[in-house]
Amino acid sequence: MAKVKQGPGSFLFPMPVVLVGANVKGKANFLSIAYVGIVGHAPPMIEVAIRKNRFSSDGIKENKAFSVNAASAAMVEATDYCGIYSGAKVDKSQVFEVFYGELRTAPMIEESPFNLECKLAKVLDLGGSHEVFIGEIVEAYSSEDYLSDGRPDLAKIEPIVYDGGSLSYWTLRDKLAHAFQIGKDYQP
Amino acid sequence: MAKVKQGPGSFLFPMPVVLVGANVKGKANFLSIAYVGIVGHAPPMIEVAIRKNRFSSDGIKENKAFSVNAASAAMVEATDYCGIYSGAKVDKSQVFEVFYGELRTAPMIEESPFNLECKLAKVLDLGGSHEVFIGEIVEAYSSEDYLSDGRPDLAKIEPIVYDGGSLSYWTLRDKLAHAFQIGKDYQP
Repeated sequence: MAKVKQGPGSFLFPMPVVLVGANVKGKANFLSIAYVGIVGHAPPMIEVAIRKNRFSSDGIKENKAFSVNAASAAMVEATDYCGIYSGAKVDKSQVFEVFYGELRTAPMIEESPFNLECKLAKVLDLGGSHEVFIGEIVEAYSSEDYLSDGRPDLAKIEPIVYDGGSLSYWTLRDKLAHAFQIGKDYQP
Repeated sequence: MAKVKQGPGSFLFPMPVVLVGANVKGKANFLSIAYVGIVGHAPPMIEVAIRKNRFSSDGIKENKAFSVNAASAAMVEATDYCGIYSGAKVDKSQVFEVFYGELRTAPMIEESPFNLECKLAKVLDLGGSHEVFIGEIVEAYSSEDYLSDGRPDLAKIEPIVYDGGSLSYWTLRDKLAHAFQIGKDYQP
């Protein structure tokens, strides 16, 4: 199986889809992105990379707070809408029911299965197209509807993932294996 | 639907699973992680967050190069193995067939559907459990087996995703919708 160079590109399969929430000019705004990753466990930290000069960026910097909201399959239309249209052109404060937590300036989505409330820790300019916002997750919110035995249940959350190859959203099928178990007795 | 506080935690659903490749003491080593995200499009940049003092970390810093290799369902046992056992204890240089690209010190996995060759751009210490390695993707590699019409085909790649809630690996089902289309006419 010969490898063929594909050229440099932002290839990662698949990427989680989330809605980044920020207060901009005193109003809640939500931006769908797939450039997101956990960057720390203790304390829990997350990064979101946003194209420079997006509407949300100033709001995050001003309030030093943002949220990361999981996107479930049931929210796919609204999520896509929040990725297509800029808050500079449409008012996205009414797309979802909004609630606030202890930071008071990180708007979160009631309909979302899981909400992360983040205190801005660092803004990184890597010199290219995007700015990286790193936040400490100060609280997480969910409802009983998305938990089983008190733990987040992926089958109930039904998260959307993004496929940059075909520009499409996918859903998950099923468990393939237990992590930290299936490879325990593997013999290379 | 009342929200319940879940406490701060590294909740992101789901996370992609990748194998980070690095040369350590002159030998290829691979570490499975789920803390990964694209952080730039032009130029393409990627971050991987690795628990401090892992075996791979010194190798990445020494060579200023690493790779990010997609994990397909067919590789689940070997992938899990590379997440359980440290390179300090087992020799992981023989787990996969290894190839090198233009950087010469970023080992990549022949069996992996997609390989990203990365030049280290920045190491971030956020003060917590993990170190963040940010790399510029200088080349990507795949084979015809994982492409359709020249583009990466998620159905052929069959990527594993990680569910931190149940500590399990999942696969994808099917396309849910076209991105940047399904929400075009959405009326909030």
